[in-house]
Amino acid sequence: MARTGRRPGATRTREEILQAARADFGEKGYNGASVRGIARRAGVDPALVHHYFGSKDQVFVAAMELPYDPGDVLERVMLDTGQDPAEAVLRVFLQVWGDPRTQAPMLALIRSAVGTEQAADIVRGFMGDVLLRRIAPRLGVSPLRASLVASQLFGMVLVRYVIRVEPLASASPEDVVALYAPAVRLAMDLPKGP
Amino acid sequence: MARTGRRPGATRTREEILQAARADFGEKGYNGASVRGIARRAGVDPALVHHYFGSKDQVFVAAMELPYDPGDVLERVMLDTGQDPAEAVLRVFLQVWGDPRTQAPMLALIRSAVGTEQAADIVRGFMGDVLLRRIAPRLGVSPLRASLVASQLFGMVLVRYVIRVEPLASASPEDVVALYAPAVRLAMDLPKGP
Repeated sequence: MARTGRRPGATRTREEILQAARADFGEKGYNGASVRGIARRAGVDPALVHHYFGSKDQVFVAAMELPYDPGDVLERVMLDTGQDPAEAVLRVFLQVWGDPRTQAPMLALIRSAVGTEQAADIVRGFMGDVLLRRIAPRLGVSPLRASLVASQLFGMVLVRYVIRVEPLASASPEDVVALYAPAVRLAMDLPKGP
Repeated sequence: MARTGRRPGATRTREEILQAARADFGEKGYNGASVRGIARRAGVDPALVHHYFGSKDQVFVAAMELPYDPGDVLERVMLDTGQDPAEAVLRVFLQVWGDPRTQAPMLALIRSAVGTEQAADIVRGFMGDVLLRRIAPRLGVSPLRASLVASQLFGMVLVRYVIRVEPLASASPEDVVALYAPAVRLAMDLPKGP
C-alpha cells in the first residue's frame, strides 16, 4: 500500500505532523497530548508545528479534518463589529452543518464522542481548552457561561442535524437565526451593540 | 429460561403490552407504530392500553423504561404557577440526569439515537410528537420555538453529562439554573409571571 509518488517536502512534513498528532491524541487523549510531543513524534521542531497550524486546538482541528475551529469562528465573528455576534455564530453553525461535505467530519466526531469513552475524552479536552482559553476570554464571560452558549449551539445541531426532529430539521436557516439568536445573545451576556 | 412463577393478571397484561410496544416501535418506527397496533399485537383492547399508559408517547416512555416523559414534566411544571417554568424545567432535567439510576436509560436512548439511524428514527418521531402535540400547545408557542427550547435542554445534557465538558460538567445545579434559565425563558417566549 506504500505510495511512492513524490510530493513537495512541505506537504509531506505537514502530513507527517498530522499523522503524529492523530497518534498522540489517540494514545494520550486531548489533555495528555502536546505540541511538543507531536513534534517529537514527527521528528520536527515544535516551532514548525506552530508555524503550520498554530496552537494545540488548531492542530487537533487539522488532524481530525474538521471544517472549522469553534475558537477561530468566534474570534472572527467578534472582530467583525458590523454584525450581531449571536446571529453571526448561529449562521456559521447552520452553514457548516447544512453542507453535507463540511457536516460529515463534524458528525463523525460527535457520533464517536457520544458513543465511546475514548472519543468523548478527546472531545471533552478539546472543547474545554477552546472554551477556557479562547472563547471565554474573547467574550469576556465566565467559562461556565461560555459552555452554556456551546450547549445551545450543539443542542441545536443535535436536534436539527443529528436526530433531525421536526419542525426544527426543516426550518429555514433564517427562521432559526431569528428565533434563537436572542436566547444565544442572552447566554453570551454581551453588552448591547454600539 | 421460562419463568413459571405466577404474577397477578394485571401485571402480566401490562408487561405483555410493553413487550408488544417494544416490538411495534422497533419494527415500524415511532410514527408507524400505534396504540391500536400495539393492542392488537398484545391481544387486548386499545382502551386497555390507554387505561394503563395513556397516549402513544406515554406507552413509549414506559416501554423504553425512561424515567420521565418530557411532555408530562412540562405539563406538571406549567400547572404549578408558583415557580418559574424555565427554572423548574431545568431543575427536573438536572435532577434526572444527575442521578445515575435515572440517567442510565436516557443516556442509552441518546447514545443509540446518535449512533444508529433506526434509533434516531424512533427518537425523532417521539420528540416530534411530544413537541407538536403536547409541549407547543401547552406553552402557547410555535412548534419551532418549542424545538429550540428542546435544543437548549438537550444541548446542556450533551455537554454536561454525555461529553462532560468542564466547567459545565462540575458546576452546581443551582449555578446552571441561575445562569441558563433566563436564556431558556427567552426561548420559551413566555409572558412575564403574575
